[in-house]
Amino acid sequence: MSAPKTARADLIADTAIALLVDRGMRGLTHRAVDEEAGLPAGSTSNLARTRAALLELTLARLTELETASYGGAMTPGPPVMSADALGALIAGVVHHQLAEGRRYTIARYELALEATRRPELRVIYDRAGARFREAATVVLAAAGSPDPARHGRQAVAFLDGMLFDAIAGAGGDPAPADVRAAVDDLLRGMLG
Amino acid sequence: MSAPKTARADLIADTAIALLVDRGMRGLTHRAVDEEAGLPAGSTSNLARTRAALLELTLARLTELETASYGGAMTPGPPVMSADALGALIAGVVHHQLAEGRRYTIARYELALEATRRPELRVIYDRAGARFREAATVVLAAAGSPDPARHGRQAVAFLDGMLFDAIAGAGGDPAPADVRAAVDDLLRGMLG
Repeated sequence: MSAPKTARADLIADTAIALLVDRGMRGLTHRAVDEEAGLPAGSTSNLARTRAALLELTLARLTELETASYGGAMTPGPPVMSADALGALIAGVVHHQLAEGRRYTIARYELALEATRRPELRVIYDRAGARFREAATVVLAAAGSPDPARHGRQAVAFLDGMLFDAIAGAGGDPAPADVRAAVDDLLRGMLG
Repeated sequence: MSAPKTARADLIADTAIALLVDRGMRGLTHRAVDEEAGLPAGSTSNLARTRAALLELTLARLTELETASYGGAMTPGPPVMSADALGALIAGVVHHQLAEGRRYTIARYELALEATRRPELRVIYDRAGARFREAATVVLAAAGSPDPARHGRQAVAFLDGMLFDAIAGAGGDPAPADVRAAVDDLLRGMLG
């Protein structure tokens, strides 16, 4: 993606994310982005000529926003961490993603599914996913996991499963006490 | 959904599922179904006039196929079950959904996300989801869970998380030993 990093590029990508959440992959078109962003016809095509380019721009911006939104959870943690502190951290990520992060989560799942059909999008998605998994691996090692790489992956899958079930699946939002109980079960199973 | 249950209805719904997997929500249109199914133009519109009706038909058929494909896992299990037997059952469902069930899983995730925007689709999705969760609750009770309803939901979220990570997320398919280790961690956390 060679588009210059400008305010207009951000506006276009932010509008694309909003369309993806509100109307799905079918509602995200170059023309719809122009209209919703209040830009002259052709503006989105000038920035990202093909559909692939538009999707890549959208995912790159989403990754930037989600990384900023996670904030502290992505920075290196302490070298040793109690299971209780880790439980609070993971439960906090769940609550954040169900509240402020909810729309980003839906957009990310849309792009993840589209990436099953678009190898270039897959590469970008997997690069971002690897960063999240590495962060999870670091905190699980700090909490004493005997197999941090495997457990880091399990923790990311657990998070996505809880979020998907709550946001898009049949579950609806879980009670905060149930989130913490599920996180505690997860950590008891991994850390003993 | 009042469409009569005919071979043509199944052909149309099966084609809609295939389009959803191969081309996403954007590639699923009445016209594309007619073309891919080799039916006269207008056949799909005759059966399901609106887009909502087509999506509902597709989800109803998918639920029917996934229920048949799960087979034994949805029938009442024994009243008492060892954690080891339950672990084998859950790992078996993961492997099945990553192999024969893979395309159904992608189609279901597409419809789950679309259901965030379509209340009528949400109702159908949630009804099917509740059946899967009840089956999970029954086997967790049989394995001695102290809170089978909460754990049944956790088990379904765990399954969807592992599958999403493998199929659409950044994970790729996990090694069979890692699937079983993750399932064992899950059950140790829930059952002690």
